[in-house]
Amino acid sequence: MRARKKKWATDELNENELIVDNARACKGSWEQVFGNTNPIYLEIGCGMGSFIVENAKKYSNINFIGLEREKMVIVSGARKVREYNETMPENLIGNVRFVMGDAAGLNEIFAANDISRIYLNFSDPWGRRKKWAKRRLTHRNFLNIYKEILGNKKELFLKTDSSILFEFSLNEFIDNGLNLRNISLDLHNSPWAENNILTEYEAKFAAKGMPIYRVEAYWGC
Amino acid sequence: MRARKKKWATDELNENELIVDNARACKGSWEQVFGNTNPIYLEIGCGMGSFIVENAKKYSNINFIGLEREKMVIVSGARKVREYNETMPENLIGNVRFVMGDAAGLNEIFAANDISRIYLNFSDPWGRRKKWAKRRLTHRNFLNIYKEILGNKKELFLKTDSSILFEFSLNEFIDNGLNLRNISLDLHNSPWAENNILTEYEAKFAAKGMPIYRVEAYWGC
Repeated sequence: MRARKKKWATDELNENELIVDNARACKGSWEQVFGNTNPIYLEIGCGMGSFIVENAKKYSNINFIGLEREKMVIVSGARKVREYNETMPENLIGNVRFVMGDAAGLNEIFAANDISRIYLNFSDPWGRRKKWAKRRLTHRNFLNIYKEILGNKKELFLKTDSSILFEFSLNEFIDNGLNLRNISLDLHNSPWAENNILTEYEAKFAAKGMPIYRVEAYWGC
Repeated sequence: MRARKKKWATDELNENELIVDNARACKGSWEQVFGNTNPIYLEIGCGMGSFIVENAKKYSNINFIGLEREKMVIVSGARKVREYNETMPENLIGNVRFVMGDAAGLNEIFAANDISRIYLNFSDPWGRRKKWAKRRLTHRNFLNIYKEILGNKKELFLKTDSSILFEFSLNEFIDNGLNLRNISLDLHNSPWAENNILTEYEAKFAAKGMPIYRVEAYWGC
């Protein structure tokens, strides 16, 4: 029943040029997709796209890509852009695209230097069990993939409500040669709150008064 | 009234050889105080001494110094050692001393390389107001003093229940060239719980289920 109700989603997915179907073919030539050589920031697990779309509105000289595994979810982001563009034809959002895929396959979609910054927002923390560590998107196996596709600056920005994921990530970053800066244990009461763009989950967590953890990690200086 | 009640404290303070009265005179020659050249670990703000005394019992090949500003407080630590030694004459604690003083004056008491590790446990976090940052014991002004008296390894171990102090400290460490390792956002539910020695405050906080933050910071590799 649920699939039939969402019949529109599949149609829109195929039609909507905001969703890049042939992402593997774009590897190494994403400037052609965007029509310019601006830096590309990638959100892994973009959900319904609030974060990436608001970023695209705010920073017109940056290109944004939202990656998401769920076919039905990714359409919401594209729809947000389309609806905004229909109501604001004088101020179109042209700097955002969506890609279906997951973190493990990033190096099939992006070549070295294709991406300038990666965002991980409220990724699944998994539990404290050791065998689950490999599934976390900040596990060293994923860090190695991110490093492959990132450019010279190699930035990775993390936000989460999970102290388990945050603790794991800080140590995993350090152990794998990333540097840290601008650590916050309560983002919404910190100096970084001012420029913070909320995700869908974050808005819910923040409304409950839960602290949000944030860090900027990077390779090199 | 309070001072009169604690008359014993002043007497014990003068008599007790565990409390080093002439600490400035020991600068650069603390091996003479301990009678050996074992590394010296310093706790800044040792309170009633539980942490430092338990460490001294557990690690007999390390010398420990507890620093505390409060005349009346420091005696409790010394008393703990004396009472233990009276009941355990076959297993005397000889590797601990107490010094009255504060962090700002450390370089008058210790020379370069006198100290191998510094512990900061549940230091006053102060509030979020910017002007208070200078009072925190992890402010860069204090870090510079610690660096002066530490040896080659230059280690600084921090425990706190305050997310404000912890966030401030992590960033202050990073901004001042210290490296981080073994970060915990919930010490008592972490791999570092096993060897953790409680302070007086920590026992109270932990009993309430409050998370304890911990990090090892260090200069160099």
